[in-house]
Amino acid sequence: MFREGDWILIRYGEKRYLRRLDPADSLNVRKDVLRFRDVVGKPEGVRIGRFEVFRPTLEEMVLLGFTRRTQIIYPKDAFFIALKLGLGKDSRVLEFGTGSGALCAVLASVAGEVWTYEEVEEFHRTAKENLSRFGLGKNVRFYLGDFLRADVPEGFFDAVFVDVKDPVPYLEKVHSVLKDGSPAGFLLPTANQVSDLLKSLGDLFGGVEVLEILVRYYKTVPERFRPEDTMVGHTAYLVFCRKIRS
Amino acid sequence: MFREGDWILIRYGEKRYLRRLDPADSLNVRKDVLRFRDVVGKPEGVRIGRFEVFRPTLEEMVLLGFTRRTQIIYPKDAFFIALKLGLGKDSRVLEFGTGSGALCAVLASVAGEVWTYEEVEEFHRTAKENLSRFGLGKNVRFYLGDFLRADVPEGFFDAVFVDVKDPVPYLEKVHSVLKDGSPAGFLLPTANQVSDLLKSLGDLFGGVEVLEILVRYYKTVPERFRPEDTMVGHTAYLVFCRKIRS
Amino acid sequence: MFREGDWILIRYGEKRYLRRLDPADSLNVRKDVLRFRDVVGKPEGVRIGRFEVFRPTLEEMVLLGFTRRTQIIYPKDAFFIALKLGLGKDSRVLEFGTGSGALCAVLASVAGEVWTYEEVEEFHRTAKENLSRFGLGKNVRFYLGDFLRADVPEGFFDAVFVDVKDPVPYLEKVHSVLKDGSPAGFLLPTANQVSDLLKSLGDLFGGVEVLEILVRYYKTVPERFRPEDTMVGHTAYLVFCRKIRS
Amino acid sequence: MFREGDWILIRYGEKRYLRRLDPADSLNVRKDVLRFRDVVGKPEGVRIGRFEVFRPTLEEMVLLGFTRRTQIIYPKDAFFIALKLGLGKDSRVLEFGTGSGALCAVLASVAGEVWTYEEVEEFHRTAKENLSRFGLGKNVRFYLGDFLRADVPEGFFDAVFVDVKDPVPYLEKVHSVLKDGSPAGFLLPTANQVSDLLKSLGDLFGGVEVLEILVRYYKTVPERFRPEDTMVGHTAYLVFCRKIRS
Repeated sequence: MFREGDWILIRYGEKRYLRRLDPADSLNVRKDVLRFRDVVGKPEGVRIGRFEVFRPTLEEMVLLGFTRRTQIIYPKDAFFIALKLGLGKDSRVLEFGTGSGALCAVLASVAGEVWTYEEVEEFHRTAKENLSRFGLGKNVRFYLGDFLRADVPEGFFDAVFVDVKDPVPYLEKVHSVLKDGSPAGFLLPTANQVSDLLKSLGDLFGGVEVLEILVRYYKTVPERFRPEDTMVGHTAYLVFCRKIRS
Repeated sequence: MFREGDWILIRYGEKRYLRRLDPADSLNVRKDVLRFRDVVGKPEGVRIGRFEVFRPTLEEMVLLGFTRRTQIIYPKDAFFIALKLGLGKDSRVLEFGTGSGALCAVLASVAGEVWTYEEVEEFHRTAKENLSRFGLGKNVRFYLGDFLRADVPEGFFDAVFVDVKDPVPYLEKVHSVLKDGSPAGFLLPTANQVSDLLKSLGDLFGGVEVLEILVRYYKTVPERFRPEDTMVGHTAYLVFCRKIRS
Repeated sequence: MFREGDWILIRYGEKRYLRRLDPADSLNVRKDVLRFRDVVGKPEGVRIGRFEVFRPTLEEMVLLGFTRRTQIIYPKDAFFIALKLGLGKDSRVLEFGTGSGALCAVLASVAGEVWTYEEVEEFHRTAKENLSRFGLGKNVRFYLGDFLRADVPEGFFDAVFVDVKDPVPYLEKVHSVLKDGSPAGFLLPTANQVSDLLKSLGDLFGGVEVLEILVRYYKTVPERFRPEDTMVGHTAYLVFCRKIRS
Repeated sequence: MFREGDWILIRYGEKRYLRRLDPADSLNVRKDVLRFRDVVGKPEGVRIGRFEVFRPTLEEMVLLGFTRRTQIIYPKDAFFIALKLGLGKDSRVLEFGTGSGALCAVLASVAGEVWTYEEVEEFHRTAKENLSRFGLGKNVRFYLGDFLRADVPEGFFDAVFVDVKDPVPYLEKVHSVLKDGSPAGFLLPTANQVSDLLKSLGDLFGGVEVLEILVRYYKTVPERFRPEDTMVGHTAYLVFCRKIRS
């Protein structure tokens, strides 16, 4: 049941809004009005006129409620990353850089423990705020600083994810903090970056895969079923590999 | 460290093999031989000649180690489903039909508890064997029977996933077992099935989305970076929605 | 050499403009100005400051210079259609409806002769104006009226292309005006329409193919090679088949 | 009407066969037999049992009837190239290398005149044979030799298409043989090649575009409309630009 102060996700046709439930507030879309006082006390999925009101999912918090100081990692990519890294309730995963915390929030929902490093103080602070605003990330340790200089035990992590412009200088350290055979992932927007990374994985990592995730959304009118007119064409290339010893 | 009896994932170029580590065994690919006795005692990610040996990931267990009695739900789809449903360590999720257990294994890695229904006894038994073969699914309750006749408490699940040919007859029951506002997902191979489902979601579910996940793999030669020549063109359409009350 | 009155295509970064070359005119983009009097007398591909000026291609005429009264057929689809229909200099092709003339212009550039039918007078007139504005379509016969009632010789056309909401009532007539074994093509935005058409092709047409054309554009910065952020997700499904006799 | 000696395209479900119509011949697929003597005298699109017989299209000649000494340019790409280059009945286009002649055949069907250069004698000869086998290419001039050393008039061509491993050394010559503002196109399998080319287009060419063509085929069963299970994932990147003068 919705209560004052809850985060609510409002849908109106294909539009989506994330708001705090303040009974004095309202939302106007075209000629329709949703008065928030009518939402208080209602079940957590409710249709009021042409509006639908839900408790926001993690995806909606990230996309609509996170302050963005950086390009974020989109849920389509974050979902794949988290499970391709083989995370589960008992996993300990390290990521850097934290950025705005979008991937961090998803990793935290799956893994037992997340360690995240960010060297830009503003990003570090924003990410912490983003997660705490929605009560997320109780199992996250936020570190301010460059992972290269971090004091981290060797063979300690079940997985590492790297989202920095040039990951090559970090490869040896990533290798050393991973458990044997454990996966590392990388997000890189350009083909040139992927090519540069592939040249350097050589002796440290095996089982290399490079891929992109594309999501094609469809219109939901049953008599006119067809893909949406436009789609996200590219976010980033993903590279996955595993720590290896010769 | 690899021990006798472990499952091992062997890579040779782009080829992958899943085997039990029997020291008497070996693998021949082209002119190369991997003698398994050389793997025992090695770290869990190791390069031996042109072979790489790892502990298999969940994805590799499903793709290479699960007996298939049905069309399976591919990891690319299963990963997205599990997190789009908003699952986490505390979630209780229901799925039907179990099929060969591919989605079930992924759901179990994320959710706290999975209930899965399958009415074909052979599939039910195979799915159980598939998960237990790899020590998976300790938090899964396998039920034999049609979910339509199952005795399940109302408002009990945080999410439901449906993989049956015609989901329409199940909609009211899916609605009743879900908590308010909680997500349901559906996997449907054809556009006609999606269109039929969309016609029936009407008063019971809101927040409808239809999408497909496409994964584009790339060759990993850094000097010749390019997509793979062929790709999976289609597995299924995914439909997501949320329980609603008017 | 550019002369007064010519159509010119101006590029500025990724922006494109189609204009008549009036020496008194100019184009302002951000802080840059292209004075058209500086273009007169220049070669037909010229860089002036940050502007590039070309004679427009057929694609640019259609996309930037055609008045749109209807959803147009995009060049990516039109190019494929024209050559999938096997058109060449000696071919006689029929299309309906004419719409805004976008496909018509492409067919006319390849085929010997194009017959085009449109029953909405405003569309018919606009299409004629669109082609004549650019000196196109000298080999096109524009007809006002429903093709179903047109008096057309049997076995007369090398190819037919159909772009109407419901093509099913036209199938027998399309069959009769085609030469034996010759191709027919159809453009349909929704899966439901394709499904309906496929049900009816049965005895009249063989060699059925259904497909979509997707074009993925890339950014052209060599050090940061990557796909564009957004892409066209869908224009239409294309159906091709050939007249058959049992 | 089919006559002895004609090329015929036979379809059986999704299978396709290209054959000479020799009345003594036959085709067995599963348990069905098509005796070619039953095809002689039939209309050029005919259904005989579960077989359909047509006169082959240009696309089918290229895909099924051309001897391949090289990786060919696929029809999906060739169709787009021919019309993106703005070719029409009066155009004079140059291409190199000829390869197996697949693009050449498509260019010849659209342009007035095609000049094609190939430096490997075996490819040159095969391409000539491929086109002549199907009566194509009467408007094609085949040259044996490297285009770099060819004696070609300046400002002579309406378009140039380049399919060689490293096009950079050819750029100045391509520029010189093109008419002002006319388009050049390039086919390159890898991202590295595209990146290298983009670095060199600089002062000679403007209006640069890079793209890929993807064709998604669908199954044609109306009650189960869905994409094919597998698709071509990549053939090549296409680069288009236009001769420019500063």
